[in-house]
Amino acid sequence: MQDLRVIKTKMTIENAFAELILEKGLDAVKIVDVTNRAKVDRHTFYRHYKNKNDLMDHMIADFFGEFAELIEKQPPFSIGYQSSDKLTQFLINDLAPFISSKQHILRVAQQELSATFSKVSRQNIRDTIHQKLDADTPEIEVYIIIGICTALMQYVVDHKTTPTKEAVLKTLNDLNAFTTLG
Amino acid sequence: MQDLRVIKTKMTIENAFAELILEKGLDAVKIVDVTNRAKVDRHTFYRHYKNKNDLMDHMIADFFGEFAELIEKQPPFSIGYQSSDKLTQFLINDLAPFISSKQHILRVAQQELSATFSKVSRQNIRDTIHQKLDADTPEIEVYIIIGICTALMQYVVDHKTTPTKEAVLKTLNDLNAFTTLG
Repeated sequence: MQDLRVIKTKMTIENAFAELILEKGLDAVKIVDVTNRAKVDRHTFYRHYKNKNDLMDHMIADFFGEFAELIEKQPPFSIGYQSSDKLTQFLINDLAPFISSKQHILRVAQQELSATFSKVSRQNIRDTIHQKLDADTPEIEVYIIIGICTALMQYVVDHKTTPTKEAVLKTLNDLNAFTTLG
Repeated sequence: MQDLRVIKTKMTIENAFAELILEKGLDAVKIVDVTNRAKVDRHTFYRHYKNKNDLMDHMIADFFGEFAELIEKQPPFSIGYQSSDKLTQFLINDLAPFISSKQHILRVAQQELSATFSKVSRQNIRDTIHQKLDADTPEIEVYIIIGICTALMQYVVDHKTTPTKEAVLKTLNDLNAFTTLG
């Protein structure tokens, strides 16, 4: 477990880096731009990162680390009886604000990184969520839960804002209106 | 509109090509392998495609063309009142069988193609489905519908089989159990 102050400093640097990449492209970003934007000195920067590539690697690894921690903290959720409310709560209260705070990093990941990364990251998100579901959750349900989580994540990245609780609840509520079994 | 026999021949060639790529990798596949597998002669092949790259381009373009036609044929669907049943019917009766018949091509697309393609294709699928939704559909609902469609597509690609109607219906039904508005 890292010192909270260290974690906060690294978050500030990584967010500044992501913002700058979106503004002028990865190649044009210099370390001095990052330290200026993040308001940290060069010493602080080089205590945590070797260079720009190392910063990129840490930024992505830290994102997945924090995402895994966020999921880890949740009670197990599944769509089924008595627990879909937990899913909705998780989407609105946990996932949306987290993604919102990381939106620059996700946008960089989608714009700048390779197909391999994009495949690995989808798999990573899938596996993390999968571990939280009951072992006997039907496979198609696993896919649909992950589809809904990634839909919410993409919404936040594209719109730079989180959806309202009411809109998400209404969508999930409407989903099964007039569907009938058999 | 192309002759149906021509469409069928091209589908056979493109499916054979996709199967061969999955078996031995794109570089190792020769045109003669494709014509043997598809049981067509070289003349027929070269009437439709210039070379292997051209075949790859057509295979992907034809996939998106047929996907767009499939969506085009649907009545408008949204999650809302009276129409979510149409969504379920579409998922089970139309989308799952279509993706199942194209699973080799989708698997090739996911394994062999670039980040740019994977971005373009997600955008393409998103835009096609988006056009089918009411103009006043809330944005988050659009994302969640597309998330569910792509979840089903990914399920079919990964499992090489379509889910049962009962399993999909159960998942959609369970989604809003115990969710409450407000």
